[in-house]
Amino acid sequence: MFEKCMNFYQELGGELKPFEKFKGEVEVGYRIEYEKKVSEADVVLFGLVSGDLNPVHFDDEYAAKTKFGGRVIHGMLTTSLVSAAVARMPGTVVLLENHFRYTAPVRIGENVKVEGVVVEREKNRYRVEVKCLVGDRVVAEGWVKVLIW
Amino acid sequence: MFEKCMNFYQELGGELKPFEKFKGEVEVGYRIEYEKKVSEADVVLFGLVSGDLNPVHFDDEYAAKTKFGGRVIHGMLTTSLVSAAVARMPGTVVLLENHFRYTAPVRIGENVKVEGVVVEREKNRYRVEVKCLVGDRVVAEGWVKVLIW
Repeated sequence: MFEKCMNFYQELGGELKPFEKFKGEVEVGYRIEYEKKVSEADVVLFGLVSGDLNPVHFDDEYAAKTKFGGRVIHGMLTTSLVSAAVARMPGTVVLLENHFRYTAPVRIGENVKVEGVVVEREKNRYRVEVKCLVGDRVVAEGWVKVLIW
Repeated sequence: MFEKCMNFYQELGGELKPFEKFKGEVEVGYRIEYEKKVSEADVVLFGLVSGDLNPVHFDDEYAAKTKFGGRVIHGMLTTSLVSAAVARMPGTVVLLENHFRYTAPVRIGENVKVEGVVVEREKNRYRVEVKCLVGDRVVAEGWVKVLIW
């Protein structure tokens, strides 16, 4: 199943980066970074998986008439990249909580970069402040709380 | 692209429901509901799209040794169903903000139900409190803020 989906995804132009753990010891101040190009395949597959087929993500004509002036990607697709970023922290990472504000639209084909920094630690629970950027533009920001086993 | 992905997704056992708008006028007290079975295909595709290939979601042997005792689905895959639920509200729905706590693991093949209720309105901005449930078990809870055009 995984192999089949991976081949299908990459044939459609999906960008897949190796799942490599970040180095170092996780403490307050620890920084993470992860970047990915969001493609048409991502929007379609995220729509199918979630069930969110909102026409602002799928229908050019419909989206052109909204204030967006064209199709945008799902906000939660943007912040799904935060899941990928924190999962790359050393150890077994479990997501406990998150909060995001969506501050600007993201277009299909844009590169989204996640930048995060650990701001609090309580035993093996860490709060990570994150920003999602397209170039210098902040498109989403917030924080996640993770548990590391 | 959409047709091709949809066929691929459904062949792999992905559940796809019609994208139908809920009825009625959105006011405080307005309720939404959306349910979906989360399949192996969902976990794999969510992993590829986000880039989150955390072995707790993919590696049976690895996951069996954690406190989860087996593979679990991505927390953000569970809450992506909230995106699908709010997108079904009448009008053009734009996600502004969200907050979720992940309270229990979800296994592959389980049905996740999203239940939401509008708790605040400020002009065309609505705060919706949501719960994600598997049977009677709350697996995630929080709120989303949406703008409706």
